[in-house]
Amino acid sequence: MSSHHIVREKQEPALLIANGEACDPELLGQLLEWSPTVVVLDSAIWRVLDLGIKVDVLLGDFDRDLDLDSIREQQYPLEIIHTPDQEKTDLDKGIEYLIERGYPAVNIVWATGRRADHTIVNMTSIVRYKDQIRITMIDNHSKIFPLVGKFEKWYEAGTPISLIPVGTVTGFTSEGLKYNLQDATLTLGYRTSSSNEAAEDGFVRIDATTGDLLIMECWD
Amino acid sequence: MSSHHIVREKQEPALLIANGEACDPELLGQLLEWSPTVVVLDSAIWRVLDLGIKVDVLLGDFDRDLDLDSIREQQYPLEIIHTPDQEKTDLDKGIEYLIERGYPAVNIVWATGRRADHTIVNMTSIVRYKDQIRITMIDNHSKIFPLVGKFEKWYEAGTPISLIPVGTVTGFTSEGLKYNLQDATLTLGYRTSSSNEAAEDGFVRIDATTGDLLIMECWD
Repeated sequence: MSSHHIVREKQEPALLIANGEACDPELLGQLLEWSPTVVVLDSAIWRVLDLGIKVDVLLGDFDRDLDLDSIREQQYPLEIIHTPDQEKTDLDKGIEYLIERGYPAVNIVWATGRRADHTIVNMTSIVRYKDQIRITMIDNHSKIFPLVGKFEKWYEAGTPISLIPVGTVTGFTSEGLKYNLQDATLTLGYRTSSSNEAAEDGFVRIDATTGDLLIMECWD
Repeated sequence: MSSHHIVREKQEPALLIANGEACDPELLGQLLEWSPTVVVLDSAIWRVLDLGIKVDVLLGDFDRDLDLDSIREQQYPLEIIHTPDQEKTDLDKGIEYLIERGYPAVNIVWATGRRADHTIVNMTSIVRYKDQIRITMIDNHSKIFPLVGKFEKWYEAGTPISLIPVGTVTGFTSEGLKYNLQDATLTLGYRTSSSNEAAEDGFVRIDATTGDLLIMECWD
């Protein structure tokens, strides 16, 4: 960490490392620099320890017989939380842990790629927690976050922005995009506002009346 | 193609190569062996030609100024179809092309991975065509297809199966899974039947009353 960074516990986002495809180590390094707390999900721990990353919390159902003693030897201190509930994914449990501990925000990595079922479930289940914690899911090609209230952000002209309803979103209204909509209904599988972009240097504004919307900044 | 294979035009599935992450060349080779027709979407053509694959149709909006003359030199004959409609994705257009030409089935590769927006839109938009063409989306870790009518298939015990609603599915009923449901409502982002598996060697049966469901066979 460079000396001018002051990371305050529970003010900077926690970092949650899930068990999907690893991201670019450089991206991970940037996120780690600002994260006071690193939570790792289940057997991703081996890949994380191989990278020499200091882990604070290991959480999972450990249904693949993780050798916890050997992990403790490599990483001390380490809070180990066993979450056997089969109704929830490890990612859900990781997010709920951070909410309970009072974190205002979390960056989630390694949650996409590889298995399509994990990818779509991880991407979409973040909407469930949108009013409790600020969530950003990040991979090598994407930054994903849920719409909470009204969204307003300054973008450079041409920045790719996709608006993806998780199910159905009504009253979708956008401003500042190349293809804008007014009071529209978006339905996953049928009508999204994907592969859109900022029309010019300036603010993009997104609003919706009902439903859950994911905002995605993606790049090739 | 080995000599005992008789591939009949428009009886075996066409192969649609999209513009996402390339799959394992061996997987691609297996699919090519059975595909009478290969359709490639837009600038994926360069990566496909680099692999020495014979392409029948190139389709796209060509908004990145594809050098069509140079492509024609490398691949002749080649049907080139310009589809400028900005309301649809190239994948939609590729599927619609195959429906129009009377193909009963299509395998889709390179449609997942990399950009999260393309991945989720590609995976979920196949439900729109489920009554017109049999669609299977395949990548290195997943086989994805929509539920059409009732689903019944024999699986080995422990085979991972995920049931993912595209929006809301009602009347979801399963048999033969480790975690079965009766007349349940599944909602993307809130309640899915992901990371399930075949309970024993035998038939898995899936049914639903309303909505669009994706069946995913995934592996690590």
